[in-house]
Amino acid sequence: MSPPARFDLAGWSAAHQVLVEQALAHWISVPGIANATAAPPAALIETMRYAVLDGGKRLRPLLVLAAAEAANAGDPALTPSPSDESTLRAACAVELIHAYSLVHDDMPCMDNDVLRRGKPTVHVKFGEAGALLAGDALQALAFELLTPDEALVPALRQARLCRLLARASGCAGMAGGQAIDLASVGLALNERQLREMHQLKTGALLQASVMMGAACGTLSPAAERALARFGEALGLAFQVVDDILDVTADSATLGKTAGKDADQNKPTYVSVLGLAPAQAHAQALLAQALGALKDSGLPDTRALQGLAEMVLSRTH
Amino acid sequence: MSPPARFDLAGWSAAHQVLVEQALAHWISVPGIANATAAPPAALIETMRYAVLDGGKRLRPLLVLAAAEAANAGDPALTPSPSDESTLRAACAVELIHAYSLVHDDMPCMDNDVLRRGKPTVHVKFGEAGALLAGDALQALAFELLTPDEALVPALRQARLCRLLARASGCAGMAGGQAIDLASVGLALNERQLREMHQLKTGALLQASVMMGAACGTLSPAAERALARFGEALGLAFQVVDDILDVTADSATLGKTAGKDADQNKPTYVSVLGLAPAQAHAQALLAQALGALKDSGLPDTRALQGLAEMVLSRTH
Repeated sequence: MSPPARFDLAGWSAAHQVLVEQALAHWISVPGIANATAAPPAALIETMRYAVLDGGKRLRPLLVLAAAEAANAGDPALTPSPSDESTLRAACAVELIHAYSLVHDDMPCMDNDVLRRGKPTVHVKFGEAGALLAGDALQALAFELLTPDEALVPALRQARLCRLLARASGCAGMAGGQAIDLASVGLALNERQLREMHQLKTGALLQASVMMGAACGTLSPAAERALARFGEALGLAFQVVDDILDVTADSATLGKTAGKDADQNKPTYVSVLGLAPAQAHAQALLAQALGALKDSGLPDTRALQGLAEMVLSRTH
Repeated sequence: MSPPARFDLAGWSAAHQVLVEQALAHWISVPGIANATAAPPAALIETMRYAVLDGGKRLRPLLVLAAAEAANAGDPALTPSPSDESTLRAACAVELIHAYSLVHDDMPCMDNDVLRRGKPTVHVKFGEAGALLAGDALQALAFELLTPDEALVPALRQARLCRLLARASGCAGMAGGQAIDLASVGLALNERQLREMHQLKTGALLQASVMMGAACGTLSPAAERALARFGEALGLAFQVVDDILDVTADSATLGKTAGKDADQNKPTYVSVLGLAPAQAHAQALLAQALGALKDSGLPDTRALQGLAEMVLSRTH
């Protein structure tokens, strides 16, 4: 089976982004949060919605959905519709973790940033206590989304999705990477140390996005390992490009403050390797990612491939 | 089957506390955190251990273990040993959520407290960024503990435990209650509003502790509903007693700053009802809790009963 030559990534992304936005808007709401005891307070929900809705490229949810489609593409009977309950929940759960990390990262005691996606950051708009609590509640909501009634998502899949997300978020994942980042200001890291930091800080959650999508499908162990390698290379490539953009783009294009890494004396791929070698490194990582996709043997990985290429060519 | 008249709660609690302490010390450590990608940073682990170990009454873990034993007590073949993998993981996961909430609650933007369990609070000792990250990582670790390899805990139980914990922690649970608490400073709440706030803020996680223990056993729906009512009454009783102690105890006994609620002009059961009616209310809630235990029809609920009575008679 040979896929048609042309794949409309922009159309695919737009259609799937709409589904993700709708699902997030539904689930981060008083009726969307199922609980017998009591309704959640409106002010907290409003803060959570501000932190998540109407913003972001939704790269992580798109990776979940693309991986789920790739994992099922061999068997049309198994192919989930884009609105498949498991994959949409997984996609939104990853985005909630990403969103909470941005809210906490922007706080005065961390990066002290006032601008995010072109809007005032959450603590600027709702106060520090509101930002702290909204971030905490977003993390919990991610795991709540992954554990609905078992008629909606099989228990075995719920357990696997929670496992992947918890590991990628915690001290051996995103939070651990942020702790290293915090401790590395002003230090001269070498490339290996920089890679380890970013594998935790950014890479773990991007890789988990791919693996959570895969967990919504049916894959051979070999194909699963290949997708894990794809996710790892993509995660690193994303961070190298992020470091490049921090130097080459302006704040208006980024939707956040540009040049912050250099101002804060943080080690980056550009400061460690130089600009041109960093760009070459990003290309090499893309090649690795695409090679892993090919190794997976999956019949249709065009959405994953398109997302990887987009990560490299993005301007913000 | 009639249980012996005397139950040694102190002995039961001490033995189970040791198991919980050992398990927490094991799981909050570099080798305890299983991840193929990378080791978590030592500084973050140290902060997490400071936040969790050597402190606290471990009431929530004890409730998990007591409920699990009650839920299996009808069938000796099903009775878990106290070191049963599922129940210990559930017990420690609840404690990690409780510990993270204290770390974030103590931060300057929230309660700005400097003393906790007789020690400097986490942000005083490790800085605000360290406290923020350690709290975030503790929440993730709670869900990581609940989702080990399926050979250790069946997937169905993992999903149920994650579901109970996520709901009790998030915006329709603990985080939601804290948001209401934050918004209620200086307001004149009536008793119903106060109860709703505390049902979310403190009650949800205490009730979840009981239900998570029950989920590690085998219960009829009726017995499960009875334990849910037990957990709800106990959760409220705990908060009423907390409000009473804030007025009647001193900081040295409490291990935290006494009189803070009044200083901060926070509504409490004492400020809303008066001291003596609050004490009577606590007794009535204990009677409700014990009645629910009886209704459960479970043959041996002495540990749960003892813990409920201890909640009422505690001095800190």
